[in-house]
Amino acid sequence: MPQLRIALAQINPTVGAISANVDLAVAAAERAAERGAHLVLLPEMVVTGYPVEDLALRSGFVSASRAAIVELAARLEAAGFGDLTAVVGYLDRDEAAADRLGLPKGSPQNTAAVVHGGRVVARYAKHHLPNYGVFDEFRYFVPGRDLLVVRVRGIDVAVTICEDIWQDGPSIAARAAGAGLMVVINGSPYEANKDDVRAELCARRATEAGCPLAYVNLVGGQDELVFDGDSIVVAADGQVLGRAAQFEEQLLVVDLDLAPATSDNEPTHDGLAVRRVDLGLPEAAPYQPLPQPDSEWLEDEAEIYGALVLGLRDYVRKNGFTSVLLGVSGGIDSTLVAAIACDALGAEHVYGVSNPSDWSTPHSVDDAAELARRTGLNLQTVAIGELFDAFQRPLALTGLAEENLQARIRGVIWMALSNQHGHLVLACGNKSELSVGYTTLYGDSVGGFAPLKDVPKTLVWRLARWRNAFAAEHGETPPIPENTIDKPPSAELRPGQLDSDSLPDYTLLDDILDDYVELDTSAVDLAAQGFPADVVVRTLSMVDRAEYKRRQYPPGPKISARNFGRDRRLPITNGWRETFPDDVRG
Amino acid sequence: MPQLRIALAQINPTVGAISANVDLAVAAAERAAERGAHLVLLPEMVVTGYPVEDLALRSGFVSASRAAIVELAARLEAAGFGDLTAVVGYLDRDEAAADRLGLPKGSPQNTAAVVHGGRVVARYAKHHLPNYGVFDEFRYFVPGRDLLVVRVRGIDVAVTICEDIWQDGPSIAARAAGAGLMVVINGSPYEANKDDVRAELCARRATEAGCPLAYVNLVGGQDELVFDGDSIVVAADGQVLGRAAQFEEQLLVVDLDLAPATSDNEPTHDGLAVRRVDLGLPEAAPYQPLPQPDSEWLEDEAEIYGALVLGLRDYVRKNGFTSVLLGVSGGIDSTLVAAIACDALGAEHVYGVSNPSDWSTPHSVDDAAELARRTGLNLQTVAIGELFDAFQRPLALTGLAEENLQARIRGVIWMALSNQHGHLVLACGNKSELSVGYTTLYGDSVGGFAPLKDVPKTLVWRLARWRNAFAAEHGETPPIPENTIDKPPSAELRPGQLDSDSLPDYTLLDDILDDYVELDTSAVDLAAQGFPADVVVRTLSMVDRAEYKRRQYPPGPKISARNFGRDRRLPITNGWRETFPDDVRG
Repeated sequence: MPQLRIALAQINPTVGAISANVDLAVAAAERAAERGAHLVLLPEMVVTGYPVEDLALRSGFVSASRAAIVELAARLEAAGFGDLTAVVGYLDRDEAAADRLGLPKGSPQNTAAVVHGGRVVARYAKHHLPNYGVFDEFRYFVPGRDLLVVRVRGIDVAVTICEDIWQDGPSIAARAAGAGLMVVINGSPYEANKDDVRAELCARRATEAGCPLAYVNLVGGQDELVFDGDSIVVAADGQVLGRAAQFEEQLLVVDLDLAPATSDNEPTHDGLAVRRVDLGLPEAAPYQPLPQPDSEWLEDEAEIYGALVLGLRDYVRKNGFTSVLLGVSGGIDSTLVAAIACDALGAEHVYGVSNPSDWSTPHSVDDAAELARRTGLNLQTVAIGELFDAFQRPLALTGLAEENLQARIRGVIWMALSNQHGHLVLACGNKSELSVGYTTLYGDSVGGFAPLKDVPKTLVWRLARWRNAFAAEHGETPPIPENTIDKPPSAELRPGQLDSDSLPDYTLLDDILDDYVELDTSAVDLAAQGFPADVVVRTLSMVDRAEYKRRQYPPGPKISARNFGRDRRLPITNGWRETFPDDVRG
Repeated sequence: MPQLRIALAQINPTVGAISANVDLAVAAAERAAERGAHLVLLPEMVVTGYPVEDLALRSGFVSASRAAIVELAARLEAAGFGDLTAVVGYLDRDEAAADRLGLPKGSPQNTAAVVHGGRVVARYAKHHLPNYGVFDEFRYFVPGRDLLVVRVRGIDVAVTICEDIWQDGPSIAARAAGAGLMVVINGSPYEANKDDVRAELCARRATEAGCPLAYVNLVGGQDELVFDGDSIVVAADGQVLGRAAQFEEQLLVVDLDLAPATSDNEPTHDGLAVRRVDLGLPEAAPYQPLPQPDSEWLEDEAEIYGALVLGLRDYVRKNGFTSVLLGVSGGIDSTLVAAIACDALGAEHVYGVSNPSDWSTPHSVDDAAELARRTGLNLQTVAIGELFDAFQRPLALTGLAEENLQARIRGVIWMALSNQHGHLVLACGNKSELSVGYTTLYGDSVGGFAPLKDVPKTLVWRLARWRNAFAAEHGETPPIPENTIDKPPSAELRPGQLDSDSLPDYTLLDDILDDYVELDTSAVDLAAQGFPADVVVRTLSMVDRAEYKRRQYPPGPKISARNFGRDRRLPITNGWRETFPDDVRG
């Protein structure tokens, strides 16, 4: 059986930065060639970054991507690596399809280029376009219709893109076409536990295709998405032959023994034409394969924490910031965000602001100071008592208006310091609060990025405990003061206030929210599961009524099956309320 | 030729309020029957409101819509109107299609029910699903596959939904099926000049179908969309037989002489099966037709102003508010918003807040007072000088941070008064400012709704002049002080500041923005059109860099071909900059 050394280039491009992305892609391909790879795989739309959203509808942007892939091929050849075969994701267009389908806005295609000898020698357009969850690919792309099988060093390689393997069909078609290797280039965003699903999927598709499968994914943060990498190579029997780390750039190199190409394959499958391209390259001369690469597995909390760190780091870096600022209240949310920020950027780039009011408890001030002492972040204190009094003289607010005023004064201070010093402000609210609207618009919600936007309160505590335990295991100071983890949560906007005055216990609340926000479970079904009916109706109503607050909330990294953002699209003006049949007319 | 009296019920439902919407629909159908109509048409998804977004993916919501259409039929029968035939838009599901297409989230369909004799006698599912601009219907709906032709009182009526007539095919199929009348139920949102496009389209489709066409549309505001009504009936030769007003509920009743149904029609067209349902009703006995209804045409400014008034009124009303609050600076934007709010809600429900700083000009305070005097809105003054000083003592801000501080102090005051008194805060920024980011996040941008979000600055002035002229024509006090229209625009955040210090002249700016924001015109093409290259590059860069501000901005009514909202989806983290070829690598 012919040998093939493949390299999976798990790299971190930036949406729209085509020139810089080509530099990254060329550098990765060159490293692959230097390590003796015959075939290098680069992720879905790595030339443009992913997802490009409505940039895909700009013809100048598509033209720039087309020009960039030609340039990439020429640069590899010029560097002496023309012998290497590369599969590279980019944005192309298909004018014929646009005419056929009557598309008003051009005909972009999510495309894989096969690059060899200084040229683009074949193209494959994604067949299956995801249009659910965070994905809107029917808005942008014309689906491809032909299968592509490229003969590389005596092996027939079937090329596919991302969603193609989440749908039935392509793996069967690859088997029918006699593929010796199936490659999949991906822009697959992180969700907790998705790595397990992906590995299982890759194994199943490899078995169906009857050949090994190589899956390369993007890594990096892009607005509300985090691409986790987790590139993987599996054998035809589903065994893992190599797996890259999550949340970091990596070049995964794997040696494979593959079935040689033959000529007696079906020309079509299910009415799909197979386009065959033979690069005319000889089989690789026999060589000593590399040992199978090791791979490490992250436990659940480490994985989620890693996603939050990378999501924050890339949002800061790719938007041209070097430092962040956040209000540190001594509470668990801002303290965890501070720890994440210190891990993402270094404590010297993290600016905490403590804004005690007359109603702040002494421990909240002490806990913020203890956080600064443990992590080394920069701490500044601006008391808000006099500011509060200055507003109250003309306004004489009471109740909720008075509580919100304090949160908004803090927001003004953070934004002022941000404007003055150029720090990006972080909003520290968690998913539970944002679900039920337990947040002050333009108060604690101000900021450019919200690391915990998709993290429920109970998970905030779990992550805090995990981070401290991780530090202890590594002989470092646990960053999060124990008192911050242990004390009952409070917004401290009136004397003696506790979250539990206004909200169900967080364990119960998060259970209900998981089901309602992520799964659309109805009130009837929640009650049938044993949740107290009154708590269900009250909670679901709070969620529905808080939609307007979520619309104005900054983006934050998606870690769940359904985040607040592109994943969950509900009207603000909405008369529908989840309730029980007797009340349906209410 | 048999006669038929048709009624187009242009009504205003609320998304999600199924029970209230059924009440509205039944009442409109009853009025149609009382006026002798044989056939009443109700708009697309009127039972659920439109667009329902991800509510379509909740099975309980679909079930409620299905139950509601059955209830609607029964209520019409019980009220003695079972003889009436009604075509009513609602949300249904198609389980078989879900299985066929392998849909993970059920199989909702955007459906028209034909109701008669207390029952739903036929169903038609929309064939063509819009998935561009503000529309995401591929995310939600399974397309229908059969044509529906219903025989009503001796006439074959072809039933279609909205996008079906924006695509070629259905009108030809209706002709092939021998239709004597084509009906289209719609949820078609307003855009300036779309009424002209629609009327031309209806005339063309009627000519293709070879029979009259009746087009009924929703009316009302729903978050960022305004449905303008503009229901219309055209003859087979394209002549307008009746047209409803824009921006108000109306029952348009039109008498038609139509070709009788025959039996020698093609059973299929282009592979589509035709489902024929005969209600078994005799032709209408000859009667004296009503005179053709008059219709009035709105001039451009009146139409746009009408959209803004309705969009605001419905956002306020449907979200349970009765009053609004806005900062009145004496400038043109807040003054126009105040005039719109007074027209939408009555001046007694409009609360203006004047927040002079030490740098406010005397005329800005005077102009705000004059606005209050002319309109009768409630005016309160809260000076911000002392508050500004109170923040400056600990913060000592300079430059832009100092300017933004003033805007944010005002935002805190407006939100505080909103929380205390229950008014909805209106953000007064215009589309030009929002395009280039000439707005303070959490300052002048605070609010629940932004009436001018899609109105460029030059149009703000046009609308102000039009509103004053309209008042003068009707013998009323022009609401907008002339000085407010005539003075040069300024944010008044530092002494002597003018918008023209930071931005190109608004005439030039709006010309560039129209092309870039609404049409994606590239820098190269803009320069080729004669715009100064340096202004183009600077402007486009400002637009791109302000994306993060737009994401946190409140919704406002869409009046243009592309608004900031669902219509224009761009990444915040975005390395792409429109520039000229030499600089492309920059």
